[in-house]
Amino acid sequence: MSIVVVGSVAYDTIQTPSGKADRVLGGAATYFALAASYFTNVRVVAIVGEDFTAQDEDVLRRHRVDTSGIVHAQGKSFFWAGEYGENLNEAKTLDTQLNVFADFNPQIPSNYMDSEFLFLANIDPVLQGNVRRQMNGRARLVGGDTMNYWIRDHRANLEKTLRGVDVLLINDTEAKMLAGINSVPRAAQKVLEMGPEALVIKHGEYGATVFFKEGAYGGGAHPFRAPALPLEEVRDPTGAGDSFAGGFMGYIASQQELTRNVFKKAMFYGGVMGSFAVERFGTERLQQLSREEIDQRYEVFRELTHIH
Amino acid sequence: MSIVVVGSVAYDTIQTPSGKADRVLGGAATYFALAASYFTNVRVVAIVGEDFTAQDEDVLRRHRVDTSGIVHAQGKSFFWAGEYGENLNEAKTLDTQLNVFADFNPQIPSNYMDSEFLFLANIDPVLQGNVRRQMNGRARLVGGDTMNYWIRDHRANLEKTLRGVDVLLINDTEAKMLAGINSVPRAAQKVLEMGPEALVIKHGEYGATVFFKEGAYGGGAHPFRAPALPLEEVRDPTGAGDSFAGGFMGYIASQQELTRNVFKKAMFYGGVMGSFAVERFGTERLQQLSREEIDQRYEVFRELTHIH
Repeated sequence: MSIVVVGSVAYDTIQTPSGKADRVLGGAATYFALAASYFTNVRVVAIVGEDFTAQDEDVLRRHRVDTSGIVHAQGKSFFWAGEYGENLNEAKTLDTQLNVFADFNPQIPSNYMDSEFLFLANIDPVLQGNVRRQMNGRARLVGGDTMNYWIRDHRANLEKTLRGVDVLLINDTEAKMLAGINSVPRAAQKVLEMGPEALVIKHGEYGATVFFKEGAYGGGAHPFRAPALPLEEVRDPTGAGDSFAGGFMGYIASQQELTRNVFKKAMFYGGVMGSFAVERFGTERLQQLSREEIDQRYEVFRELTHIH
Repeated sequence: MSIVVVGSVAYDTIQTPSGKADRVLGGAATYFALAASYFTNVRVVAIVGEDFTAQDEDVLRRHRVDTSGIVHAQGKSFFWAGEYGENLNEAKTLDTQLNVFADFNPQIPSNYMDSEFLFLANIDPVLQGNVRRQMNGRARLVGGDTMNYWIRDHRANLEKTLRGVDVLLINDTEAKMLAGINSVPRAAQKVLEMGPEALVIKHGEYGATVFFKEGAYGGGAHPFRAPALPLEEVRDPTGAGDSFAGGFMGYIASQQELTRNVFKKAMFYGGVMGSFAVERFGTERLQQLSREEIDQRYEVFRELTHIH
């Protein structure tokens, strides 16, 4: 089945304790698309500038990602420069140039309209809402992301959009901020009341927990927790969350039914793709995977958590 | 089988956002002993003052905990007062009165000497080492705890003691500080090189991970991660780590063999006992459990992590 992702395709300059990468292919939609491409057909809606190279578009195409929804506009592509300190938990943004992204008004091309799944990466919630409406209720499942900026300064728009999101993926801090509650499990209940059937809260190096509305996807209200891999070397954490979302949504889109067990496996595949993403700079590792490597690492996640 | 725990038996005054408890029974050895008592016979080595009541000693005795190793000394019992803020992650110490604990020189009574398991709760590493030597290598497994104070100011003594500890249980911050390394998995490798066969690193609300030396307890070097329960209400986090250690060591002591699978289940039982401890103030919840409740919660942990 096909999944449409709407979000940024960008160039990133990244500095971490392991080294530096200069103007490499990045952006939430790129990480998501590459991660999801190992599971299902992916279609991207994004905007890039004249500096966007054919080679970088080919990176996506080589993964059978449909790039016909990427608008090429006059000007330059979204550019981000950031730096990570020793603990790698949070990037310090050194430069953000929205460029053509400032006028992004995403439109779903007609050839994408039969897609069963939609992922709204972290963009203005008004645009997220517009895109979802364009799909006209045809998507079986809508996933979404957001961040502190939209939660703090665009709350009314965000809350409107959340009513149309089936699965929201955010981190601990965002969940607490969105709910205005300091306990993660209680914040989760509050966020589920805002609309989503399921809420994935990412805990960084500690993994992620999915909380469900009672009855959602054939199960009760009990949560499910997936680990992150205890990695000895994290070279570049950029895109870990988007890669998680790509593995998570990609696996779901590859399955016939949206059962609770599919969601649990999707949490593991999310963790798997996030763990690969951070092993190299930018999208390097996500570009060179095989489904066999992915399933081997899935088994490592299983070994890490399951009692025989 | 029997387990000896050496550590503090104390009175605590605790303030949390959920309320206040005044001079309630506490101390690492108390939490450990109560948690472990649901799995195995526990024997306590501790020191208390004249203020220690017969009712409080009966709390332990009702759980078949052997208290003959508790020395009653002139003076007052160890007293601690602390306060937790909204996030409940760290206590602010308001008062510490070592009292009789300042002269604690633990001796293992002869009637404890046939114990197969020993747990060295968080006390001076010199005393931990003395106690271990008194057991004269008879214990099948020695578990231990420590804290930032000993790591920072008594490192040489601590490192000496660690060479005789089979399983060390500490938290993320302590592991990083002990290893002088900011990455938890790499810190774990470094700590294992200091002596222990296994290292349990506790992540608070995110659970705990056990790291092994290659070949230890019949398995490879791959770690195992147990969750913590996403609890909507945590009334009092005091003693969560000691209760984890009690469930963990108690379960291990209840098994015939020290296999890798026993360690994995022990991680879950550790999490289970920690989750109960924080539901009420002090040791209240640990005093009133049944093995049936414990095993029901074990199933909740399984449900939270296992894919069918």
